[in-house]
Amino acid sequence: MKENYLLPSQTAQALYAGIKDLPIVDYHCHLSPKEIYEDRKFDNIGEIWLGHDHYKWRLMREYGIEEARVTGDASWHDKFLAYADAIATAAGNPLYHWTQLELARYFDITEPLNPDTAEEIWQRANQKIRESGMSPRKLITDSNVLALATTDDPIDTLEYHKLLQADDTFATRVVPTFRTDRLTNVQKDDFVPYLALLSQAADIKITDLASLKAATIRRLDYFCSLGCTISDVGMFLFPNRVADEQEAADSLALRLAGKALTEAQTHGLIGYLHLFLAAEYKKRGIAMQWHLASVRNVNTDIYRALGPDCGVDCMSSTIPVEDVLALLDAVAQQSGLPKTILYTLNPAQNAAFSVIAGCFPGVIMGTAWWFCDHKRGIEDVIRTVAETAHLGTFLGMLTDSRSFLSYARHEYFRRILCAVIAEWVDNGEFPCDAYTQKLLENICLNNARALF
Amino acid sequence: MKENYLLPSQTAQALYAGIKDLPIVDYHCHLSPKEIYEDRKFDNIGEIWLGHDHYKWRLMREYGIEEARVTGDASWHDKFLAYADAIATAAGNPLYHWTQLELARYFDITEPLNPDTAEEIWQRANQKIRESGMSPRKLITDSNVLALATTDDPIDTLEYHKLLQADDTFATRVVPTFRTDRLTNVQKDDFVPYLALLSQAADIKITDLASLKAATIRRLDYFCSLGCTISDVGMFLFPNRVADEQEAADSLALRLAGKALTEAQTHGLIGYLHLFLAAEYKKRGIAMQWHLASVRNVNTDIYRALGPDCGVDCMSSTIPVEDVLALLDAVAQQSGLPKTILYTLNPAQNAAFSVIAGCFPGVIMGTAWWFCDHKRGIEDVIRTVAETAHLGTFLGMLTDSRSFLSYARHEYFRRILCAVIAEWVDNGEFPCDAYTQKLLENICLNNARALF
Amino acid sequence: MKENYLLPSQTAQALYAGIKDLPIVDYHCHLSPKEIYEDRKFDNIGEIWLGHDHYKWRLMREYGIEEARVTGDASWHDKFLAYADAIATAAGNPLYHWTQLELARYFDITEPLNPDTAEEIWQRANQKIRESGMSPRKLITDSNVLALATTDDPIDTLEYHKLLQADDTFATRVVPTFRTDRLTNVQKDDFVPYLALLSQAADIKITDLASLKAATIRRLDYFCSLGCTISDVGMFLFPNRVADEQEAADSLALRLAGKALTEAQTHGLIGYLHLFLAAEYKKRGIAMQWHLASVRNVNTDIYRALGPDCGVDCMSSTIPVEDVLALLDAVAQQSGLPKTILYTLNPAQNAAFSVIAGCFPGVIMGTAWWFCDHKRGIEDVIRTVAETAHLGTFLGMLTDSRSFLSYARHEYFRRILCAVIAEWVDNGEFPCDAYTQKLLENICLNNARALF
Repeated sequence: MKENYLLPSQTAQALYAGIKDLPIVDYHCHLSPKEIYEDRKFDNIGEIWLGHDHYKWRLMREYGIEEARVTGDASWHDKFLAYADAIATAAGNPLYHWTQLELARYFDITEPLNPDTAEEIWQRANQKIRESGMSPRKLITDSNVLALATTDDPIDTLEYHKLLQADDTFATRVVPTFRTDRLTNVQKDDFVPYLALLSQAADIKITDLASLKAATIRRLDYFCSLGCTISDVGMFLFPNRVADEQEAADSLALRLAGKALTEAQTHGLIGYLHLFLAAEYKKRGIAMQWHLASVRNVNTDIYRALGPDCGVDCMSSTIPVEDVLALLDAVAQQSGLPKTILYTLNPAQNAAFSVIAGCFPGVIMGTAWWFCDHKRGIEDVIRTVAETAHLGTFLGMLTDSRSFLSYARHEYFRRILCAVIAEWVDNGEFPCDAYTQKLLENICLNNARALF
Repeated sequence: MKENYLLPSQTAQALYAGIKDLPIVDYHCHLSPKEIYEDRKFDNIGEIWLGHDHYKWRLMREYGIEEARVTGDASWHDKFLAYADAIATAAGNPLYHWTQLELARYFDITEPLNPDTAEEIWQRANQKIRESGMSPRKLITDSNVLALATTDDPIDTLEYHKLLQADDTFATRVVPTFRTDRLTNVQKDDFVPYLALLSQAADIKITDLASLKAATIRRLDYFCSLGCTISDVGMFLFPNRVADEQEAADSLALRLAGKALTEAQTHGLIGYLHLFLAAEYKKRGIAMQWHLASVRNVNTDIYRALGPDCGVDCMSSTIPVEDVLALLDAVAQQSGLPKTILYTLNPAQNAAFSVIAGCFPGVIMGTAWWFCDHKRGIEDVIRTVAETAHLGTFLGMLTDSRSFLSYARHEYFRRILCAVIAEWVDNGEFPCDAYTQKLLENICLNNARALF
Repeated sequence: MKENYLLPSQTAQALYAGIKDLPIVDYHCHLSPKEIYEDRKFDNIGEIWLGHDHYKWRLMREYGIEEARVTGDASWHDKFLAYADAIATAAGNPLYHWTQLELARYFDITEPLNPDTAEEIWQRANQKIRESGMSPRKLITDSNVLALATTDDPIDTLEYHKLLQADDTFATRVVPTFRTDRLTNVQKDDFVPYLALLSQAADIKITDLASLKAATIRRLDYFCSLGCTISDVGMFLFPNRVADEQEAADSLALRLAGKALTEAQTHGLIGYLHLFLAAEYKKRGIAMQWHLASVRNVNTDIYRALGPDCGVDCMSSTIPVEDVLALLDAVAQQSGLPKTILYTLNPAQNAAFSVIAGCFPGVIMGTAWWFCDHKRGIEDVIRTVAETAHLGTFLGMLTDSRSFLSYARHEYFRRILCAVIAEWVDNGEFPCDAYTQKLLENICLNNARALF
């Protein structure tokens, strides 16, 4: 880890110096509000790194590490050594970069992690954890995080959000995000059982479309009462049509009666629900995030053994541009679009998504996500938004992470961003003046802050 | 704007010096022959830049400028200031680059345009317009344009082409292009009404397929009499089959009788019409341009308010490679292929289109178009054609523009091209000798000139 | 040709120096075992270069060379001159790079090939061929090839493999690959006639699914007895479902009775056969290669005149990610996956394929293939595998070639690989230490050697 990591020119270094101390607004992450509230001290770097991180599990499997040392009953120490073995030759992988950055920023360790250094790094990192009292709140505070939005199901009690908001000792603002995967993916077996849970959470018995909407609105208002300004959804089936009110009611009745829907009915009901939600978001000034083009749990053996979020997910095929345009246009005509952020997991559609967004004022493409969240992927989204939309409106980085160490990804992003802009400056394509600074500040802080 | 703009090495600068003064052959643009003929003096830079340019409108909307200052009734001065605001942080956008280049080349202004400089640039640019007597013909002549092909509907009278060809005072050759969108997109509501207009223009009553073909041929021959050597079409539905003569005649009869076609009939009729047109082009030595993968007017609210060509278009989903191959093969077998240029608006298919083209001698991929017409998009097409076809046959730049200032895009392209070739030279991949010069001259001038 | 060709930095040059003398393991090529065994001396460079090379034919056609001097009855001398004409301005094409490298490495010629130098290069190259006694075995030996796997149909007698293995005078190990295109592409007219040939080769009369499987296994065991450890298949129709045993037997019975299958039956039978084969490979420790997304013989006129493999093939449309995932998952559940290598000819799916592979331990994306086998294509696969899988498991280069001169492609690949890694080293993203060397050796040699 050199000081000029990822900053290949003097211009890049100068631009980075101008923004590196800006605070962070993390408008999309998967941190646990319970863990933040309880602020439990960490025990060792193996647990921190390998406890939940399916990115690392996946890399280790690809390298040939047996499951016992990935998610099995090997000790944290042995899992850490296995990771050190896997990472040592994983050149060009974002995990290599994040590992470097996290070791440097949180543990003052600048050597590469590999089988030769692993044992010493294990010792030094754990000593640092103990001596510094490393904990969720300390990491968030040290990372200079102004605000963060967790990702929460509409049925969540948000009890830890309430506790955190009542706690004066923690300065970072923590708010919930209204994440409607289980509510809108009506094609899944989980849909009807979920509605029972939603009935309970909202204290409104869901028996038809009207009560489904009422229950949803009650939960949304509850989220808003705790500062929610952002919604989110993972759409696993992108609807190619929108049902009208009557058809949606009929389709829901069928589903509630345990009947199957046709493909057209399924699409129609999903489309309807997104229109309904968008209108409610628009009324309340809530931003709408659509996470598109993922497919989950594709390796049945591993899924059966370990459950979801275990490293066997994939980007899906590209989504018809025409369907995305049609749904956005339908929202625009019905209620007007809330501030909308489109994420695609398939980078072959980066250009298409940025151009789709540009057809609707207030819609913008989100930053590189998951399998695309690496140096070249980030660069590609920055360049694509710049070329085909307006970089000055770009929302910049989020962590999308379950780990409190992932705030290093903001440094990663900022260095990459500065390198791209510096290339343009050095090539005569953009000046280096007050507007350059304004552009960087907007991307790194101001645009995301405006979501809160 | 520095002299070495976009030329990062001495080799790039030397290569550019060797071709920068070559004349321009603009084989595809949307300039108005009426405006060229009438040669009206311009009034102010706001009108020139913001009168027709939906690229700029789109950028301004994305930046959050309200419609009044985009296409509404604000003054040109206020619209210009709004544009200055939007462009100041639009790093990496081709509009930023074109704005720089046009200010430097046509107005001797080398400062960046932003809210601080906007008022002074407004004054200086308008003074330059007045003092230099800036007009369409002056801009074309000063840009060293040998020949240009406008884009014209088969029903167009071409009266201004006739007037221009009779006018000895203007040296640039101006010829029409036979653009058959309204004739071949039979799926549109406009198709049957259009045939009535075509009947009038050709003075042949269209009552069946034979008379449709006769009317088309008469118009094509008329275009040829005025120097037309290039055709063009925007295909909004790429046909997956080709009807035979009888089916095509039957489908057309249905359409003329106000009946709907099945999807298969629609595809078949479109396929038939392209085969018919290709054969007529082949006979006459007319090049055939296919503009593929666009979708228009996707934001209904803006389209209803402003009409077409107002900045709410998009690239469409990728087209099945097999369909494009099948239609080209059908043409090859029936009549032989005319010189054919394929443009795709979805850059995810750049490699596929270049390889498709390479299966048919005389077919080549066209330069980066519309949403792809930026530095990285141009580079990608240059590299893709080089890697998977033959760069020496590449047709180089066109403006595709409604603006007389857009000839600066040829300088933009030439600098980018020289930077790519220079990278190869400096990396030992290609020599710097007489064949390098020949390659550059062919791409920048000779290959396009051969279309006329 | 400079010593530092494709090596733009001192780091790149140093990394390359560390691996340039490693031997080659060519785990996928189309060399003729007969030509290797017979070791016939070459006559002239025209014959060597233009006898079988449809890459060169295609380039020449694109440049406008008439067919007589491409594949027709012009002399080798005239064809060579035509190629020199076409290649002189083919900047950025891999043929330009390979031409440079092959002239330098095998003929000591470092001048560029163009119309001015062609005649002298023709003389000097042919003199070198005569003086050095250039032959298949000499080229393979001089290229330091440890082992190579040819590509062979299950019905092949492998007689030349037997002869080669009995021949002590040739050190390179030559083994067959079990290539099942004709066995698994049941949608083709060739399928049933092929089964008759397979019956003969296996000496088992194929009358139903059981006998088809028995015959296949007998041939596979025969291949294994001659050292086969790798299989391969070109899948021209990727199955979207897998038939069960009974359905597969019924579908095969229909095919054998001369009946047509429905699309679903066709997909099901293809899926079944791949599951069957994968299980047999798994039992025997045979690696499985899937070559996906090509479409052949798309220009009917040229195909009819010249037959297959004549330069009129194309990448096909992208394959549904979900189908590839489903087939891999089905294999994983039924028999476990053998070591599997996925190749896609459509680079728009590079990221998707690398991520697909990463969902299944032991599955990896293969190197850039055919239309993607050029500098940027190779770089893209290296970077994609690094970013989304694990570069340390990458199998590195293969020639995929019919030409004995193509071993220069390994040098090409190694230089490109070192340039990519050096960029990361110089940018602070990866160290330059023993693990860098290990990574390079694994990619350039060890991982491929483990396939044998």
